[in-house]
Amino acid sequence: MTYAAPIADIRFALEACAGLWRVKAGGGFEDLDGEILTAVLEGVGALSGDVLAPLNASGDREGVRLSNGAVFAPAGFREAYAQFAGAGWQGIVASAEHGGQGMPRAVGLAAHETVHSANMAFGLAPMLTLGAIEALEAHGSEEQKRVYLPKLVSGAWSGTMNLTEPQAGSDVGALQARAVPVGDGSFRVTGQKIFITWGDHDLAENIVHLVLARLPDAPTGSKGVSLFLVPKFLPDANGSPGRANAVRCIGVERKMGIHGSPTCTMGYEGATGWLIGGENEGLAMMFTMMNSARINVALQGVAVGEAAYQKTVAYAHERLQGRGEGAPAKGASPIAMHADVRRMLMTMRALIQAGRAICYSAGVEADLAQSGADDDVRRAARARADLLVPIAKAWCTDRGVEIASLGVQVHGGMGFVEDGGAAQFYRDARIAPIYEGTNGIQAIDLIGRKVAGDAGEAMNLLIAEAREVSHGCASSGRPRLARIGLRLAAAANTLQEATAWLLATYAGARRDALAGADAYLRLAGDVAASTFTGRGLLVADAVAVEAQETPALFFAETILALAPSRLSAITLGADVLFEADLGENAA
Amino acid sequence: MTYAAPIADIRFALEACAGLWRVKAGGGFEDLDGEILTAVLEGVGALSGDVLAPLNASGDREGVRLSNGAVFAPAGFREAYAQFAGAGWQGIVASAEHGGQGMPRAVGLAAHETVHSANMAFGLAPMLTLGAIEALEAHGSEEQKRVYLPKLVSGAWSGTMNLTEPQAGSDVGALQARAVPVGDGSFRVTGQKIFITWGDHDLAENIVHLVLARLPDAPTGSKGVSLFLVPKFLPDANGSPGRANAVRCIGVERKMGIHGSPTCTMGYEGATGWLIGGENEGLAMMFTMMNSARINVALQGVAVGEAAYQKTVAYAHERLQGRGEGAPAKGASPIAMHADVRRMLMTMRALIQAGRAICYSAGVEADLAQSGADDDVRRAARARADLLVPIAKAWCTDRGVEIASLGVQVHGGMGFVEDGGAAQFYRDARIAPIYEGTNGIQAIDLIGRKVAGDAGEAMNLLIAEAREVSHGCASSGRPRLARIGLRLAAAANTLQEATAWLLATYAGARRDALAGADAYLRLAGDVAASTFTGRGLLVADAVAVEAQETPALFFAETILALAPSRLSAITLGADVLFEADLGENAA
Repeated sequence: MTYAAPIADIRFALEACAGLWRVKAGGGFEDLDGEILTAVLEGVGALSGDVLAPLNASGDREGVRLSNGAVFAPAGFREAYAQFAGAGWQGIVASAEHGGQGMPRAVGLAAHETVHSANMAFGLAPMLTLGAIEALEAHGSEEQKRVYLPKLVSGAWSGTMNLTEPQAGSDVGALQARAVPVGDGSFRVTGQKIFITWGDHDLAENIVHLVLARLPDAPTGSKGVSLFLVPKFLPDANGSPGRANAVRCIGVERKMGIHGSPTCTMGYEGATGWLIGGENEGLAMMFTMMNSARINVALQGVAVGEAAYQKTVAYAHERLQGRGEGAPAKGASPIAMHADVRRMLMTMRALIQAGRAICYSAGVEADLAQSGADDDVRRAARARADLLVPIAKAWCTDRGVEIASLGVQVHGGMGFVEDGGAAQFYRDARIAPIYEGTNGIQAIDLIGRKVAGDAGEAMNLLIAEAREVSHGCASSGRPRLARIGLRLAAAANTLQEATAWLLATYAGARRDALAGADAYLRLAGDVAASTFTGRGLLVADAVAVEAQETPALFFAETILALAPSRLSAITLGADVLFEADLGENAA
Repeated sequence: MTYAAPIADIRFALEACAGLWRVKAGGGFEDLDGEILTAVLEGVGALSGDVLAPLNASGDREGVRLSNGAVFAPAGFREAYAQFAGAGWQGIVASAEHGGQGMPRAVGLAAHETVHSANMAFGLAPMLTLGAIEALEAHGSEEQKRVYLPKLVSGAWSGTMNLTEPQAGSDVGALQARAVPVGDGSFRVTGQKIFITWGDHDLAENIVHLVLARLPDAPTGSKGVSLFLVPKFLPDANGSPGRANAVRCIGVERKMGIHGSPTCTMGYEGATGWLIGGENEGLAMMFTMMNSARINVALQGVAVGEAAYQKTVAYAHERLQGRGEGAPAKGASPIAMHADVRRMLMTMRALIQAGRAICYSAGVEADLAQSGADDDVRRAARARADLLVPIAKAWCTDRGVEIASLGVQVHGGMGFVEDGGAAQFYRDARIAPIYEGTNGIQAIDLIGRKVAGDAGEAMNLLIAEAREVSHGCASSGRPRLARIGLRLAAAANTLQEATAWLLATYAGARRDALAGADAYLRLAGDVAASTFTGRGLLVADAVAVEAQETPALFFAETILALAPSRLSAITLGADVLFEADLGENAA
């Protein structure tokens, strides 16, 4: 067994914790029901397990190859991609009008979870294509939609996002790529972009690059950035890939992980492109795309954790060593019978459960923000989704690294050996806290735009929900759930206190607030996870409760229990950081 | 700059925190003083920085090569080893009688810290040789000492430890290698050993393998294990390497990190060996060696963290991005001026400081256990050292992984790119929680042998010292130190409560105690670190205080502050672990 989609766990998160079925209240998604959801998950899960997972280790070993500006994916990826696209999985959430299945994004997320678990390097290709689809659906001209969307939705063509330049990483506004109007509606795009995921490859017949660049006389900084569509091959009159455009891959990175995914340096030398949306509105559009991509990356943290967990649980039941405290007979027992090994396995499981609850909640709220029954529903969902995005992205990807590291640890010496299979998850997982906005950027986004930016309204609503769930748990008559409720109540109080401090501090002493941003995000994530899991446990059926209650209790007693003590790090302030010598004397 | 030995930080840990100079009270080490200590650290530090550090990345890229049973280290390692040995650094702690410098072990540790920071893969070779030296000094026959010790102490020959077999990892007693007496005092050793660090290589002219094997009719399990000395080349009449022995490397592992260090599968096919110590006493002797090796591995966690910190601080002062809250002017500033980046740098620094305080305290106590002025001093030091060994090994190596991971994060995208230089530390650091007894084994050792085993006496003395230091800090009249004192007092109370629960639980409900062992070790490490650092701050001079007080305060307010909340995880019990389905249904 390499990977089997954990359909029951995903459905618990999606339906019970995140409340998926609320998306139907707006009148859309009429055909979707539990049976169809299961069919989707089983279908894509089977492809992930049978086709993508077997290529994960080989793709890691082989890596990608750059030859004369053309990138070749590892053996088998091209055929696997053809199966993935051929089955229609690229288009799950795209509108039916352009050939998609029109499912909620949250269902698309669930499908992507299985892909990322099976093969995170591979999963980045459809993830980036989805970003391009969403950008064109929201901001593309009718012509752009007509020419590009059907190709992207079918997976015949893939998409990329081109933001980063050597001097412009987290500070996207510092980018220098230029776009000059030709006069016929097109532009000549020139510049160099780095860290472009799947920037070139041999899986699809064409690649649609979305490129941030500056128009002549554009304002400096982030206000002068526009978004351009630059195809690898210019579509001919029939819409097929025609003449090669002036864009090529001029290097691929030698990375610690996701070796099967080409990370390209792209050179644009007067490449033909077209403006998407309005002039100088590129960054706002990119942020819309990024909100979606960030939930997807958050889910990568969960997904790589799930893959590590499945591998590790299997090993822990095979590997005989010592006599575990849970072992019935004398002699060597599986290491899964040792209390400390179970502690590690349970931690992995509890963190995965928690991360799923956050990610799918963010996904369902993002759906409701678009298709909710009325303005109030949509507005509330938008605020909740905006609040959850940075929490999901940072919390789940940091936990993904922890889970993968625990997987290595359970494997012992075999965990450090590449052929043992656990090491790759530890290496792959490490990118997720970095890309799509580092987790530090997420923490700044959370306390600035998402908490201080709306005077704490969205956060206070989350805290109120945490209390409501904790009351529900406490009065449920179920002993384990009641214990979860107690921990959640205490943590919600701490989160309220921290939020009040943050709101009082942010305006006048911003750097003090920023010094505690990471610790605040951690606390908010712990509370959100337990709130959504608790919500799920209150409504789930007996079978789901049997499987899900114990990890949720373990999470509450070993992780959420630390919440009251986190206030100290949140409110410490920045003086201690700025007074200390952190390399200043040497620099 | 690649690496510069942090001599002031090491001296603070060694002298102020660990109380190095107590070792002179027993009458030994007469020639050692502050000047000589500095000279040693500067000397070995210069070799580490100038010779070993430049080979770290190249050794990682190149790795080792196995050809016809012979292993070749990466380019430059052989010459570097010759310099290391030629300068006498292998023999720092060995007795003068066999060519050593007779320094305290704690000073040897400090020298090794710089080696591990500069090049962890390289550092394993002298570390294993030191283990062989210590084993022979303590248990070897006069003949064995005469033939082997001068060669090992000079570094002309190197040493290995051969414990693990495919079915015998954490459960060493399950090993099956056999040793049959020949009749002339020698034995024929047969079996296969795995994960043998520097099991074969081209750095030294001979290799002295210490091999655990069973004599005919030995008792089963760990009581039937004896220790054998098996040289790669049998010494001739002049003591030079003569005829090749029947031992060879039959494979090297493809590992996630420490690529410059060969991890060998060793085949013994009737190899000639000699018994060390008594029959069936191998495991006890191995444990003596392991106590020493475990402190060394603990220090590897600190050392790889220090290397990551130095690399990361330098990058954070070079890399311009955005305008930091601490930046004076407009425009892009070094990322070290951002509060959240400083939070990560400070966390790294605080964890390194804490780890050093634990490791050097353990080292000085191990010295005092041997050379203390009287029996009482020696007995107390032995108990303290025994208590600290598992804490040091697990706490410092887990923190080493965290520190290296933070280093990757500060580097952003460059952290995930292998040529960025941060990724190697993240990969290398991951082995330390695994080898020399996994950190789970350390936690079990702590609560079983070290706490329950002496009815909590040694731990209660540590708690008493924590309180004494916290009182000293509180009444010091120094505001930062007073805040540290408050956090330490609260944490010591929690540790006392946890210890009482553990002692009450261990005998009757062992698996409940084991379920909390990891969380208990974490708490004990946090308290020990702050106790020893606080002790140091109370006696250090103004220059040291200026440099060390802020990281210690940061540690207290952001990490030690979590202590009171850790009780929940410690006392949770094992039912929640053993009732849950952790792969049982699938297995």
